[in-house]
Amino acid sequence: MIKIYGYMQSGNCYKTALTCALLDIPYEWITIDILTRENRAPEFLAKNPSGKIPFMEIDAAGDKSLTESNAMVNYLARNSALMPTDNYEIAKVEQWQFFEQYSHEPNIAVARFIAKYLGLPNNRRDEYEAKQIGGNKALATMEAQLQQTPFLTGDKMTTADISLYGYTHVADEGGFELSQYPAIQTWLQRIALQPNYISMSD
Amino acid sequence: MIKIYGYMQSGNCYKTALTCALLDIPYEWITIDILTRENRAPEFLAKNPSGKIPFMEIDAAGDKSLTESNAMVNYLARNSALMPTDNYEIAKVEQWQFFEQYSHEPNIAVARFIAKYLGLPNNRRDEYEAKQIGGNKALATMEAQLQQTPFLTGDKMTTADISLYGYTHVADEGGFELSQYPAIQTWLQRIALQPNYISMSD
Repeated sequence: MIKIYGYMQSGNCYKTALTCALLDIPYEWITIDILTRENRAPEFLAKNPSGKIPFMEIDAAGDKSLTESNAMVNYLARNSALMPTDNYEIAKVEQWQFFEQYSHEPNIAVARFIAKYLGLPNNRRDEYEAKQIGGNKALATMEAQLQQTPFLTGDKMTTADISLYGYTHVADEGGFELSQYPAIQTWLQRIALQPNYISMSD
Repeated sequence: MIKIYGYMQSGNCYKTALTCALLDIPYEWITIDILTRENRAPEFLAKNPSGKIPFMEIDAAGDKSLTESNAMVNYLARNSALMPTDNYEIAKVEQWQFFEQYSHEPNIAVARFIAKYLGLPNNRRDEYEAKQIGGNKALATMEAQLQQTPFLTGDKMTTADISLYGYTHVADEGGFELSQYPAIQTWLQRIALQPNYISMSD
């Protein structure tokens, strides 16, 4: 069985659990608490030198493993209804996922971390304000697409939606006003209504 | 014919031209000079609202287009020798590409931009120094893999190598000492010797 090492309140980790749930893929979840630095424990670093989570072990021998949440999500979903097979449609999924890691997560996830976990200390306030600008720009890009199509790449839900859902649905914890983005709000509800959906607190 | 809008000295843009060259894919290159802000011209923003380059138009009508360099590289290479077909091998390619956009490019490309194009002004020096730390960490991750395998995902060159080659081969322009990374240096030479290789200045 696949083992996933992660912390469910991390959007990156939650994405992988949500994919398994939606696709009914059995998996073992091993909680790694980043707040108590369990990801820096020697036995974990021996498996996963970067210490980054989520981390996935695919075979029992530990010979096959993955880092990077979006690579894991696509691995889990390949050959399912969540992953297209047409080359251009796959590229559109990947386009949104690279956008997520470059333009969305570094703003929204980091603003959330500074606000929710660090309590918005004064010495991080300038950074937090800069992340508000970048994060709202990323949300506006999503809003423009979701005004046109029910899911990010068109009529069907794909792993791109899971990847962007991870931190978007908790963006309010990073100071973002989702009420400014009505199409995003509808899309969030659409995803939460999928059969087998799990929340971050499940 | 595919049209690519880009600036060849940008590693992200160069990746897409290199992929076309290696695979002998015909393409039209339209230079967009980011230094003179051609990417903010109204006629370009009408096609590509984010203004980000590279930008690819796939059909003449402009109905199919892509942003995000790594999504473009994979689109171009799908069904070629540069893109595996096994699910786990594809995931390894994507893992390195997400690593590139999250942990490598934001350090190495930005340090290079600050040094080469802005002339390392005093008000960017702290940021530049922080990028040295992050960039060397990313290079050390690549070095550890390339000490074990000739290419990032194993014995065969894939689009992961193209994606990481883009900025690694000009990392010296960002202040990085590639002589500290012998396996990376050998890998850079291995890529530059591929049939049909083009350089950034071709």
